[in-house]
Amino acid sequence: MTHETLGSGAGMGASAGRVETQHVRLHDEDDPFVLESGEKLAPVDVAYETYGELNAERSNAIVVCHALTGDAHVAGHHGEPKTEGWWDSMIGPGKPVDTDTYFVVSSNLLGGCAGTTGPSSIDPATGKPYGLRFPHFSVRDLAKVQRSLLRKLGIERLYAGMGGSLGGMQILQWALDHPQEMKNALLICASSRLTPENIAFSSVARNAIMRDVNFQNGDYYGTDRQPDSGLSVARMLAHITYVSGQALERKFGRERRETEGPTFGIDFQIESYLDHQGDKFLKRFDANTYLYLSRVMDYFDPFADEAAAVERLRGNPTRFLVVSFDTDWRFSTAHSLEIARILEKAGCDFVREEIASPWGHDSFLLPVPAYHQLVRDFLAGKR
Amino acid sequence: MTHETLGSGAGMGASAGRVETQHVRLHDEDDPFVLESGEKLAPVDVAYETYGELNAERSNAIVVCHALTGDAHVAGHHGEPKTEGWWDSMIGPGKPVDTDTYFVVSSNLLGGCAGTTGPSSIDPATGKPYGLRFPHFSVRDLAKVQRSLLRKLGIERLYAGMGGSLGGMQILQWALDHPQEMKNALLICASSRLTPENIAFSSVARNAIMRDVNFQNGDYYGTDRQPDSGLSVARMLAHITYVSGQALERKFGRERRETEGPTFGIDFQIESYLDHQGDKFLKRFDANTYLYLSRVMDYFDPFADEAAAVERLRGNPTRFLVVSFDTDWRFSTAHSLEIARILEKAGCDFVREEIASPWGHDSFLLPVPAYHQLVRDFLAGKR
Repeated sequence: MTHETLGSGAGMGASAGRVETQHVRLHDEDDPFVLESGEKLAPVDVAYETYGELNAERSNAIVVCHALTGDAHVAGHHGEPKTEGWWDSMIGPGKPVDTDTYFVVSSNLLGGCAGTTGPSSIDPATGKPYGLRFPHFSVRDLAKVQRSLLRKLGIERLYAGMGGSLGGMQILQWALDHPQEMKNALLICASSRLTPENIAFSSVARNAIMRDVNFQNGDYYGTDRQPDSGLSVARMLAHITYVSGQALERKFGRERRETEGPTFGIDFQIESYLDHQGDKFLKRFDANTYLYLSRVMDYFDPFADEAAAVERLRGNPTRFLVVSFDTDWRFSTAHSLEIARILEKAGCDFVREEIASPWGHDSFLLPVPAYHQLVRDFLAGKR
Repeated sequence: MTHETLGSGAGMGASAGRVETQHVRLHDEDDPFVLESGEKLAPVDVAYETYGELNAERSNAIVVCHALTGDAHVAGHHGEPKTEGWWDSMIGPGKPVDTDTYFVVSSNLLGGCAGTTGPSSIDPATGKPYGLRFPHFSVRDLAKVQRSLLRKLGIERLYAGMGGSLGGMQILQWALDHPQEMKNALLICASSRLTPENIAFSSVARNAIMRDVNFQNGDYYGTDRQPDSGLSVARMLAHITYVSGQALERKFGRERRETEGPTFGIDFQIESYLDHQGDKFLKRFDANTYLYLSRVMDYFDPFADEAAAVERLRGNPTRFLVVSFDTDWRFSTAHSLEIARILEKAGCDFVREEIASPWGHDSFLLPVPAYHQLVRDFLAGKR
């Protein structure tokens, strides 16, 4: 969710080393991608990275899906250690997702802004960036594009799918749609249904972007007016929900900066931190992608028809790991319990665990020992 | 905090009837208001309302302090029932604060935008609105202006001071500074110290306002460009923190509006609600006032020197009522417990109670029966 987090995000063990983002065209005009809505999209290019080696049986692949603001660069570095991937503590040689054993594939999501076709891509019909003319898509579409990528890489079955937050939502959908293709599904601080409070926070973030006078109805590309104010406010707001009050207390308390009495600038350290998060985000993220990927979460509701979902899950051979963190208030343990409730009803094989960690939702990005051990053991079939 | 809330805000019993906002000049250039910072301010005009009658002994006065976005119009109506004051369920004939018994005074805060001198007032030095040249002030200053008003009305001692949220913070400061003048102090979902998370939310709200390109560094008055986008986003964001997730679930759930599939407009009822809150706010509130009154809360920290605070409180004759609501996550019960901890340490006479109510922080505005009974009993000396 964030590249820089509150906790100690330092990786453990060896790095996956130097990796490169690769690009592939999965769909073109002769073979467009058909969205769940029925709309067609072409071309669809995908940026992805891989770590480790695919074994001869093609049985050791793990797909990693990123969350709202992630990208394909999950592990290793792009030539210098400072560019380590966002889940480098989790993935690499000897790490919980051991790239000496597994072949890991991660791609930038459809609608993204880091190499995969999205609203900033050129619409061949107009020769201009799509902007808000990019079609809406579903979590199922997000998973489907990644499934196409795996096919392209010659992978029919996954040893595991894993992701945190929106990443876990994609894995859940994927496991529901193609249970025979996913041996293990790791749903980390995920949700099967956003609460109205979740939607409310995302709605305000989108409002910050769209009410920015420089938003220009999404056609800001190539102009000298970008919705930077709105995007940074959206990020600052969202960031509060990624961390726990306890983490903020521990890290910043009421510590002040050296201002003489009140100003409307940065008087408290917590304000400096948020400001930094907002600014940094502008350099790497596209406002329209924020709109699309946050909206797709609002609509995700695979258990809306509970009876049908249970029926469909019955006999599903996938093993599920459902993990939450005790201080996560964005997707609290209640969200994981709801997923587990349905899995249990359907007689699925699952492990559910709440991990103690002070860092809130961002915990999923951090090397929390009990959490890493759980992932390691689950993948090894010891849990 | 809000004029329209999630719960049933209907008043109970008789209304205080038709009331009018009155205006008084408390300080002029010959007698400027001296802020805690040492700065001087003149003129200082105050808008206020009164309800009920001051008795002959002048012993039945209750001052009500408003919260961040309130105003002087607490009870009764301005000629038609639709204009009922924001705490009309609490204050009126036969109500918990019974205007057949008590004389209630409420004024718009210093820095406000509803009749009291604030950043939208004309700075006599320039002949133009102050904007961000308005001096910063403290919670003590807010209380001090109201104390001047009471003196002007011939009131030396208060039967009680009461307020919710920032309102309660003013009462706390007042009781600390002038314990002999306040017989009862009612601190409702108040705080003696904002957490970094509290500050973070306010900081993002201020950023939304100040990064709005129409903010013009606060000098938007009389121009055709107002920071409406920023102010509405600030309000929408703050509003989420005023209600509980439980209340949003109960009231809106994931109920959809009639849109065909996803849009970036108002697809969910919760979005419609927030949008309405944001828009409505623009009609009655000034962005600069939002900045000043939210900042004053960040700095409030009367127990920063705990030993000194305890020493100062010792022997304080004021009776305190410290009330919180179980679903309030803006100023949770932890905030009230912290106030009570200090009061207890100093041997003060206090009642602390957490009220069960599903409506979050906004509960303080609602006719929650156990809460209203507690206020009634406390004022009658039965608690």
